[in-house]
Amino acid sequence: MSRKLTRGRLLAAGAVGAGVALGGVGVERLAAGDGEKAAEPIPFHGERQAGIVTPAQDRLHFAAFDVVTSSKSELRGLMRGWTEAASRMSRGEPVGETEQRLAPPIDTGEAAGLSPARLTVTFGFGPTLFDRFGLERSRPPALVELPLFAGDELDPERSGGDIAVQACADDPQVAFHAVRNLARIGRGAVVMRWSQLGFGRTSSTSRAQETPRNLMGFKDGTNNIKLEDGQALAEHVWVPANADPRWLRGGTYMVARRIRMLIEVWDRASLDDQEQTIGRRKASGAPFGREDEFDPVSLSRMPVDAHIRLAAPRANGDRRILRRGRSFTDGMDAELGQLDAGLFFISYQNDPASFVELQQRLAASDALNEYIKHTGSALFACPPGARPGGYVGETLLG
Amino acid sequence: MSRKLTRGRLLAAGAVGAGVALGGVGVERLAAGDGEKAAEPIPFHGERQAGIVTPAQDRLHFAAFDVVTSSKSELRGLMRGWTEAASRMSRGEPVGETEQRLAPPIDTGEAAGLSPARLTVTFGFGPTLFDRFGLERSRPPALVELPLFAGDELDPERSGGDIAVQACADDPQVAFHAVRNLARIGRGAVVMRWSQLGFGRTSSTSRAQETPRNLMGFKDGTNNIKLEDGQALAEHVWVPANADPRWLRGGTYMVARRIRMLIEVWDRASLDDQEQTIGRRKASGAPFGREDEFDPVSLSRMPVDAHIRLAAPRANGDRRILRRGRSFTDGMDAELGQLDAGLFFISYQNDPASFVELQQRLAASDALNEYIKHTGSALFACPPGARPGGYVGETLLG
Repeated sequence: MSRKLTRGRLLAAGAVGAGVALGGVGVERLAAGDGEKAAEPIPFHGERQAGIVTPAQDRLHFAAFDVVTSSKSELRGLMRGWTEAASRMSRGEPVGETEQRLAPPIDTGEAAGLSPARLTVTFGFGPTLFDRFGLERSRPPALVELPLFAGDELDPERSGGDIAVQACADDPQVAFHAVRNLARIGRGAVVMRWSQLGFGRTSSTSRAQETPRNLMGFKDGTNNIKLEDGQALAEHVWVPANADPRWLRGGTYMVARRIRMLIEVWDRASLDDQEQTIGRRKASGAPFGREDEFDPVSLSRMPVDAHIRLAAPRANGDRRILRRGRSFTDGMDAELGQLDAGLFFISYQNDPASFVELQQRLAASDALNEYIKHTGSALFACPPGARPGGYVGETLLG
Repeated sequence: MSRKLTRGRLLAAGAVGAGVALGGVGVERLAAGDGEKAAEPIPFHGERQAGIVTPAQDRLHFAAFDVVTSSKSELRGLMRGWTEAASRMSRGEPVGETEQRLAPPIDTGEAAGLSPARLTVTFGFGPTLFDRFGLERSRPPALVELPLFAGDELDPERSGGDIAVQACADDPQVAFHAVRNLARIGRGAVVMRWSQLGFGRTSSTSRAQETPRNLMGFKDGTNNIKLEDGQALAEHVWVPANADPRWLRGGTYMVARRIRMLIEVWDRASLDDQEQTIGRRKASGAPFGREDEFDPVSLSRMPVDAHIRLAAPRANGDRRILRRGRSFTDGMDAELGQLDAGLFFISYQNDPASFVELQQRLAASDALNEYIKHTGSALFACPPGARPGGYVGETLLG
């Protein structure tokens, strides 16, 4: 049941792949355009966890788990097992093999024969994990539940969690396979608390990717931090090498927010209203008063409550976040008879306050609030990457 | 906001595309392998509706609508509008354009800039549609609600419907865009009753496609009817040119069944149990007692209750169906704390009895029943395709 790169994908990678330096972090291969897939597997091991600055893949399967074991050594074993499985799956290998016919297969098998599809698995620890295991003193002061923002309608069943697993891949079956097999490996130690599927790349994370459109039909992520922005990553995303606690150095914080779009209301708004709300032209993505998507934003040229005006770093003490959200649709809301769809917002930043202050401003005044509703919320601290032979979380649990 | 084929995709199509004759039905371009995508848009118009024998795309957005208007001419207008929109979207065009800034945009815009991604939109009419509009006498006698099968645990909120829309594409955002815009065009005439997202191709529908694996990790659809099987299509799928009612000639019937897999139970079954249940080897897909996936199935070599033994055409009066299902995962079942995933089964056949008799046999004896649960069910009659200038359903409503 070994999986291999399909010939076509290898050829495609050869044709369009291009090495891109990552400010000392490493080298990844990128597709030149939006239509092609980079076939090279993304290495799991490294100084940083993969899946944060990795050029955004097409699909997301996110899952938050609660830890049910009270044994720290079992928790350690879990992260060791998850690290091993995630690194194998990132290479396109099954999580394990056996000749035993009378035992359940170690790998569930649905990804056999598929390419690794640039799978990345990224782990984060929620504030609640630190209540136990003697971890109380290791909790970073910033790792606390996010405050309730104005207008939040949070569903506790889509919020929180002790450990986050963000599986991204260009093939949904590969992402599903990863979450399913990690859940299986974790049986007895964790139970899944909630999960979210996503598609599209509502924010590109590389200059090599075109800016995609969100489900409001607008380009989203034009001024996102890109993996090529080494300086901005160091300043805004990665926890510095001299920060405390030590275990989080080289890591980051992940914010997850399920943002439901009131699609039917939005679809009845005029083009003019929609553009005034966002602060960009719908077709071109150009900011108000400009011609091109990438022209500099002139805050004074747009309404005071336009989304991108309020979200601009200039309006937020020059703090920036790296967005890595996905569109979602969970079918329809049977109660309302409307499409249940929106943006599963994920951001990475080296201080949760960067998100909190931004979101406080947005929650108070953003014109977009008329068309959205935050229904889920979580915060996690993502440790640095693992060395071969080590495991993610070793700096905390080792 | 016009959409165009991306250059990379066109190049890929040029490299791997190959014309394949369809037994007189038409010619479609196919990718040679599993990894590449055929970039050529799939023509919407034709003798048959697209999306039935079209090589299965990667993603599905299925929606069942109830008709709320009581005016037959509104129903006619709906099908006319849907046909026009579907054919535009299949070419990668927005459903409409306007210079009006003070009106809502005609197209919601999230597919602007994306390739058509081989979008197909397939329509079907449910039995309940024929209770009104003077259509009582046009209802084919075979178009009645499917019987309740042993073990069915149907959710009425995932069953039935007056009109089915099956949107398939290689990009989920394109499939979502199609359903959303059709729902929008239909406002006032229809309301969405239920919907289902799917991924993967649990049954390939072309010899050019590798047999994919379902979420049980087994290859699924090895002996499916393929688009190259002109004779089998004529015999089992298309309603013959001399059949009654006339309006359905050249059409077919669509069965939709949401089949939940009890993933956790399956994952605890031994490899031996799993293979005895299916009747194939998990790794190779070979039937019992054989070496290769495509070796002929020898019924006597497998357990009497093995799935493929009971499902084999030989066991069912040589009747065959064309399967076009998708894997699904709707996240987790909060009540059970388990993954909510399985197979959204869709089959096409020129007589619903082909499915009913097969399913009666399976429901009674299939070893697989221990691991699955049917939770949704619907039957639709799919009219023939539309000529340019005509509309789908014209043979019934015109």
